[in-house]
Amino acid sequence: MSTALNTQIQRIEPPFWFSGMHNPLLQILFYGTNIAQCQITIENSNAINNVKRTENPNFIFVTINTQKISTSEIDFIFKRKDKSTFIQKYELRKRRKDSALRKSFDSSDTIYLLMPDRFANGNKNNQNDQNTIEKYNRELPGGRHGGDIEGIIQNLDYLQSLGITTIWNTPLCEDNETEFSYHGYAQSDVYQIDSRFGTNEDYVRLANEIHNRDMKLVMDYVTNHWGLAHWMVHDAPTKDWIHQFDNYTQTNHKRSTISDINASKIDRTVCLHGWFVPTMPDLNISNPLVFNYLCQNAIWWIEYANLDGFRVDTYNYSEPEYISKWTKAITDEYPNFNLVGEITMRNQGLLSYWQKDSSIGKIQNFNSHLPSVMDFALSDALQNVFNEDDDTWDQGITKVYDILSKDFLFPNINNLLIFAENHDTKRFNHIYNNDFRKYKMAMSMLATLRGIPQLYYGSEIGMAGDQNLGDADIRKDFPGGWENDENNAFHPESRSECQNAYFDFTSKLFHWRKTNDAVHFGKTTHYIPENNVYIYFRYNSTKTVMVIINNHPENQEIYTYRFKENIENYKTAKEVITDLVFDLSQPIFIEGKSALILELE
Amino acid sequence: MSTALNTQIQRIEPPFWFSGMHNPLLQILFYGTNIAQCQITIENSNAINNVKRTENPNFIFVTINTQKISTSEIDFIFKRKDKSTFIQKYELRKRRKDSALRKSFDSSDTIYLLMPDRFANGNKNNQNDQNTIEKYNRELPGGRHGGDIEGIIQNLDYLQSLGITTIWNTPLCEDNETEFSYHGYAQSDVYQIDSRFGTNEDYVRLANEIHNRDMKLVMDYVTNHWGLAHWMVHDAPTKDWIHQFDNYTQTNHKRSTISDINASKIDRTVCLHGWFVPTMPDLNISNPLVFNYLCQNAIWWIEYANLDGFRVDTYNYSEPEYISKWTKAITDEYPNFNLVGEITMRNQGLLSYWQKDSSIGKIQNFNSHLPSVMDFALSDALQNVFNEDDDTWDQGITKVYDILSKDFLFPNINNLLIFAENHDTKRFNHIYNNDFRKYKMAMSMLATLRGIPQLYYGSEIGMAGDQNLGDADIRKDFPGGWENDENNAFHPESRSECQNAYFDFTSKLFHWRKTNDAVHFGKTTHYIPENNVYIYFRYNSTKTVMVIINNHPENQEIYTYRFKENIENYKTAKEVITDLVFDLSQPIFIEGKSALILELE
Repeated sequence: MSTALNTQIQRIEPPFWFSGMHNPLLQILFYGTNIAQCQITIENSNAINNVKRTENPNFIFVTINTQKISTSEIDFIFKRKDKSTFIQKYELRKRRKDSALRKSFDSSDTIYLLMPDRFANGNKNNQNDQNTIEKYNRELPGGRHGGDIEGIIQNLDYLQSLGITTIWNTPLCEDNETEFSYHGYAQSDVYQIDSRFGTNEDYVRLANEIHNRDMKLVMDYVTNHWGLAHWMVHDAPTKDWIHQFDNYTQTNHKRSTISDINASKIDRTVCLHGWFVPTMPDLNISNPLVFNYLCQNAIWWIEYANLDGFRVDTYNYSEPEYISKWTKAITDEYPNFNLVGEITMRNQGLLSYWQKDSSIGKIQNFNSHLPSVMDFALSDALQNVFNEDDDTWDQGITKVYDILSKDFLFPNINNLLIFAENHDTKRFNHIYNNDFRKYKMAMSMLATLRGIPQLYYGSEIGMAGDQNLGDADIRKDFPGGWENDENNAFHPESRSECQNAYFDFTSKLFHWRKTNDAVHFGKTTHYIPENNVYIYFRYNSTKTVMVIINNHPENQEIYTYRFKENIENYKTAKEVITDLVFDLSQPIFIEGKSALILELE
Repeated sequence: MSTALNTQIQRIEPPFWFSGMHNPLLQILFYGTNIAQCQITIENSNAINNVKRTENPNFIFVTINTQKISTSEIDFIFKRKDKSTFIQKYELRKRRKDSALRKSFDSSDTIYLLMPDRFANGNKNNQNDQNTIEKYNRELPGGRHGGDIEGIIQNLDYLQSLGITTIWNTPLCEDNETEFSYHGYAQSDVYQIDSRFGTNEDYVRLANEIHNRDMKLVMDYVTNHWGLAHWMVHDAPTKDWIHQFDNYTQTNHKRSTISDINASKIDRTVCLHGWFVPTMPDLNISNPLVFNYLCQNAIWWIEYANLDGFRVDTYNYSEPEYISKWTKAITDEYPNFNLVGEITMRNQGLLSYWQKDSSIGKIQNFNSHLPSVMDFALSDALQNVFNEDDDTWDQGITKVYDILSKDFLFPNINNLLIFAENHDTKRFNHIYNNDFRKYKMAMSMLATLRGIPQLYYGSEIGMAGDQNLGDADIRKDFPGGWENDENNAFHPESRSECQNAYFDFTSKLFHWRKTNDAVHFGKTTHYIPENNVYIYFRYNSTKTVMVIINNHPENQEIYTYRFKENIENYKTAKEVITDLVFDLSQPIFIEGKSALILELE
């Protein structure tokens, strides 16, 4: 893939770069035994901006100004103390046309979150590799099950038929931990796809195949930490590359300390510098070398694989000043690029703090520059309310109403990622014991509430799993992804009746969603729930959608008079799943524990 | 008290006014049979700014410019259609020196909330009155028990000995409902103290007696509604004086609709215009006549009775635009005057919205101008946490930590009213079954956390009461307030041992609080609770107070190393209740379910 390495150099990162970037400066890391003793020159010496040596003699960081390079290849001349020299070539590739102005995902999209190791094993020849430690073992719940990029590619038709438009897969870069490496969040090489998932070229092919279907690809990026097996953890450029304590110190997870004017310094430091888990060394993004490294790595993947967005892991476990600069560096390169940060906070005031241009961030002169955050308040509610049959002040569907009532706190409510579950939460179908009625209610809300809906692989065919049995149980293999699977849920003919019911509903719903821009970018009007029924409208200048969520176990008749401010221009309404037509001058009948999505006509 | 009325006039409001106010305009209401047919003149006709007649012929509103009046008495000349004339005198009194710059209550104060009808019956001759309907009946839990202003005056020494500095009593103006009139929130005459409590002159005497002790008096003001028996409900100046619906409509209490960008118009209207209860007609403060009336009535009481602050009832049930203008009108007259609004909201983002100069209000270009709000988030926590012995992510004392962690949302955190209970909540001692340990923990926190502590009458001698039995049970008579009470808790010698234990602790604590300005206006540093122990510091440039709340049932040893950023300049610490001295280089021993307040030395 990249330029060949001289024998005296073990690694160059980024392995190549692109000419014509917004930020002309490029920090190239050269790694090799005692490389720091070398003097480095290039033909146009003006183009070398800075040469930085650290306390580790095996590293040298050379910053060049790519605007001053007119060729597509640079010859770096290394001269050792003994006057011996060698040359390392470095490539500057051409960018794709309009690369900087690439579009990204937004609230017109529906995102499908999958874990590659658990989705489909498309290539049986890459299950093990001599360079990676953990071996294929599908018997082990938390082991490597063999899913890979080829498996995703082979099932893109399935995903397209489901009606989703965007794929977010958990990380694919090399994770060389001895166990639990399947999840990919403890990366050992952030420029290399894990060989058990495929190659860098396979990842580019995945992006191309996705784009050929007018779909989008979102990369799961990890700024906060690497894995213990990362080569720069073994041989760090600087002592402060990784946050270190006298004794192993785990983060306290209290990210409220970041904005808390009362927080003690030590609590804030442990929050931000403590390690997420013992296998994930915490990166010191405030070190400029680390900062540039992470900016460039992220931009490299966007440019190299032609990406459509990032999901950023454990976003606010990194120093806020620098993670926001990192985010800005990316959106400076790609002004339309969307990044959704994992901000695991339920309080909407604190959650809003982390969205770009937040008035709440502004209280502390803070701007994360992060366009999108995850709506954990809503997901918590969706994981509880459908079991709450009583209609009280703060129980039942009112919980969802109360969440929406605070939308004004967010600078960009359409850019909230909304979801009922993900790979770190309880499985929706487990919580509700595969009650299909409750699944339909939740999906109906995800398809029509403000924000970007995100589904989690397998739930669309009724998959469940109990988090209390361990994370592996919420990350089971998708049936049909493995050659001898008895049940193949990728194809209608081999799905069970129940699986088809789940799939067909989900598919119809999210295919419909693509057609109605009122639910993408429209306004919302909602009404205080009565009798555990929540009614809201999404509308723009041409379309109005009325959604009725009856969370009461009994059937109800909804008198329409109360909603006249939203329905006065309409006479009838067509339900989008059943195609039934309702007369808006009459009470609307709705079954217990069900949803109606009505396009007003 | 006021100028004598001409026989053709039944009421004038305000009954008199003051010269030299910041706002020179004064809207005088004249009420009398067919008064509206009169032409009105005064000697200096320039001083009449506006004469406003309404659809009710019995009202005329005359606005004068008091700056243009040089005399202390105005002769209003009324001329009827039949050319007959009569004169009504109107008095403009002199203001007290520096009235406009009066000081008010702040976080150096401790407020005592009492209900006059339930505190002490000082005057047995005013228990009934021919003009008021509900009669004295101490046997009836929700009836009138005879407590009065004289009862408060007679027990000011008691309150002073308790260590409190400020008295907030529930309303004293006439409430002529047929039942439950004792609470005073359904007022029938807002210029007149209820005769069963005393006279307007008694109220002025109360204020004077309080000021003589260097204490402060806060009036409970009601802007949102009057009682059904109010004379202007019987004969309203305009149809829109009171919010009316086709059928009786109660507020939905969802004040989130005010800031909710998704709220339906009808929900917001019902919230703001619906009646609080059927006996409390909802005032239309957006009518300029009502608005001026309410501004002047509030200012009149401040000026007349020399008040030190307002507590404003059901603050955000009034139209936000006008209640904030009302608040601003008062603080324009009295720039240092403090008003604490009853904003019964638990979400701190929404609560902050209502404090003056809130960045969250600013999102919607809203400024309430309300200096102080009540910290219902904290009071909810204090009513629960001491029964939560387990130390989990969101249970136990961590709830309090989590609340304090959002202090940055507020523009003025020292101006939050903090409390464990009030006349509308469960009684603290009931919730905790009179566990004295828990009382001491809660009081220790109220005395040392940021904000203005507010106590509720009777708890300081161990009073309890079960809200599930009705509001009257949390509003019982203070023992000793009635002549034949067996137990008199106003005096140490007649208090039980248990009552003295409660009183002595509370008194020592709040007397100490007066001496330490670090807990009044100091900064806070708090530490993430461990083992259900919450530790925080209050400090300024000269003093540091360390507070340890051990909410774990077992004794603990606190290692001080973690707190070095707060204690490094100190060697020992003196506990303020026991006077015990601790060596800060050694672990601090603390009993289960207890608090230590340590002054560092």
